[in-house]
Amino acid sequence: MTALRDKFAEYITDLQDKIVSALEELDPNAPRFLRDQWERELGGYGISCVFSVPYSATPATTILEKAGVNISVIHGTLPPAAIKQMRVEHASIPYDPDSTTALPFFAAGISLVIHPRNPHAPTVHANYRYFEIVDAVAGPAPGPSNVIAWWFGGGSDLTPSYLYEEDAVHFHSTIKAACDPHGAALHPAFKKWCDEYFFIPHRKEARGLGGLFFDDLCSDPHKRMPDAQAADKTTRPWTPEDIFAFVRSAGDAFIPSYIPIITRRMHLPSTEEERRWQLLRRGRYVEFNLVYDRGTKFGLMTPGARIESILMSLPETARWEYMSEVGTEAESREGQLLEVLKNPKQWV
Amino acid sequence: MTALRDKFAEYITDLQDKIVSALEELDPNAPRFLRDQWERELGGYGISCVFSVPYSATPATTILEKAGVNISVIHGTLPPAAIKQMRVEHASIPYDPDSTTALPFFAAGISLVIHPRNPHAPTVHANYRYFEIVDAVAGPAPGPSNVIAWWFGGGSDLTPSYLYEEDAVHFHSTIKAACDPHGAALHPAFKKWCDEYFFIPHRKEARGLGGLFFDDLCSDPHKRMPDAQAADKTTRPWTPEDIFAFVRSAGDAFIPSYIPIITRRMHLPSTEEERRWQLLRRGRYVEFNLVYDRGTKFGLMTPGARIESILMSLPETARWEYMSEVGTEAESREGQLLEVLKNPKQWV
Repeated sequence: MTALRDKFAEYITDLQDKIVSALEELDPNAPRFLRDQWERELGGYGISCVFSVPYSATPATTILEKAGVNISVIHGTLPPAAIKQMRVEHASIPYDPDSTTALPFFAAGISLVIHPRNPHAPTVHANYRYFEIVDAVAGPAPGPSNVIAWWFGGGSDLTPSYLYEEDAVHFHSTIKAACDPHGAALHPAFKKWCDEYFFIPHRKEARGLGGLFFDDLCSDPHKRMPDAQAADKTTRPWTPEDIFAFVRSAGDAFIPSYIPIITRRMHLPSTEEERRWQLLRRGRYVEFNLVYDRGTKFGLMTPGARIESILMSLPETARWEYMSEVGTEAESREGQLLEVLKNPKQWV
Repeated sequence: MTALRDKFAEYITDLQDKIVSALEELDPNAPRFLRDQWERELGGYGISCVFSVPYSATPATTILEKAGVNISVIHGTLPPAAIKQMRVEHASIPYDPDSTTALPFFAAGISLVIHPRNPHAPTVHANYRYFEIVDAVAGPAPGPSNVIAWWFGGGSDLTPSYLYEEDAVHFHSTIKAACDPHGAALHPAFKKWCDEYFFIPHRKEARGLGGLFFDDLCSDPHKRMPDAQAADKTTRPWTPEDIFAFVRSAGDAFIPSYIPIITRRMHLPSTEEERRWQLLRRGRYVEFNLVYDRGTKFGLMTPGARIESILMSLPETARWEYMSEVGTEAESREGQLLEVLKNPKQWV
């Protein structure tokens, strides 16, 4: 029987291929994605697929401006301090807080950020990941038979510079349709979590229009779905196989959730003022990722982490203005976006 | 007798005027700085002087790209949690850790960041500040007679995209000359602190070429100058008046430390590739300020803080590339800069 870790690694490898192909098909004349495979010194590997165009003072005409679709499949040893830190969020890890034992871990994930060039085409992000902690004393080689803790996490969210309600509805309903067959409690809980997570407190606004966000999904009760656990046990998946099926469904929804949106926006005419606003919004994206994003912060603090892969999410260009007047008129197209960023909506 | 807080507020108001005038004189045809006075709801005021030019897809031709010279003079009440946090760094604050008493505070400072447009002209930052905590029970109106803790902080550092050794030597020697008359221990201690502070761990490089950085300078022994305290008491200033004289001397050195440098670089011819490298370096500046800078982080976390003033330090435009090849050749001009960022030098 193939271990879940191997099935998950195979799944994200295949998904990465499909997503990169779908993006390349959008713009057949553009340069291909750079495919960059790397080894991790402490164990494991990754494949970064990256799109960019050479620098030029005159703007390029490709559909994408900067994009990265990464997978990583790594393993290693968690020092006691890291395990204790993890137990704050994952209380079920069977580990004596006084222990000084390091434990083997396995982590695999796909992570992508796509920044299109047209100000009317939204930025999108998605990430799906699987984590395992293994019992160190059960044998020299970590394997599926001695997993003592595991969980899935992930999500996807849309960040436009200009609001198109039909895009928001399409994105959210595609994701909801992917979630609902796996339990009615999933989408409401993880849509709300997404709104809360992708929030920039110092700007008092969301990063974008939200989507899905979850972490720590395993066979234990989940703090974000208390009702689902108390009553009907069919409103969320509980087994590794059922949770993996949910994660696959969400991952498979990425292409249908996004490609139709970028397709209908990527050739719209745009003005210099719209480009300016897009660059200002890119600045907010940088603020969120560098100041608040847990994955980014964790990565930056991790000795030996691959910085280029972590910061792949940053846009090619971002802009900051002091007291910018763009967006301050509520009736403007820019003001309309800010309104929904300050007051997240139920799109479906 | 005028209280130190009032003398300091007067000093930074005058210094702000002088610096803005000096920058405006560099480029008489450019728009003037915007002078923006604001009131703080919880007590005090600030004046932000900001330079920018309207957005355009074709690059502007002004000497400066974005600049801000701020002062703020604020007062209010420190809740017990904030005082306890401050005592970590300022052990001398006479405050019972079990107390639930809030204490009045006063804080004033000047803070500036200048991003010139020419890739050969360096970015510069300076900041000088004074902080007071007042005994709450001594009277209803906080005043100089009941100050229970006070300290000065500040510094200045230079961040070029291209290394000109004579600029580095000029900047550091001007600052050193401003420090030395106030005590031989100051410059060595605070130059070193600057190199340590303006460091980007995830890039393993300094933000720039350093300069001066200090905090917590008061009548108590200072952890960064142990020798100066143990032996000759004249190697650093000890009284409020003598420390203020040192801070004035450092503040007054800003114009002579920087204006000659920008003057000789601002009209140099530059290429698109040099502009690209400058924008990549601006990206590193953003990374440092958002991820590590203590003042920025503290500001972003403070409810009611004026975000526009805090983020004034960010460049107009910044750029990120995945695995950029610029700077990877040690013999290139870009590689030469990286070499000194990875191995900070004694310039004087």
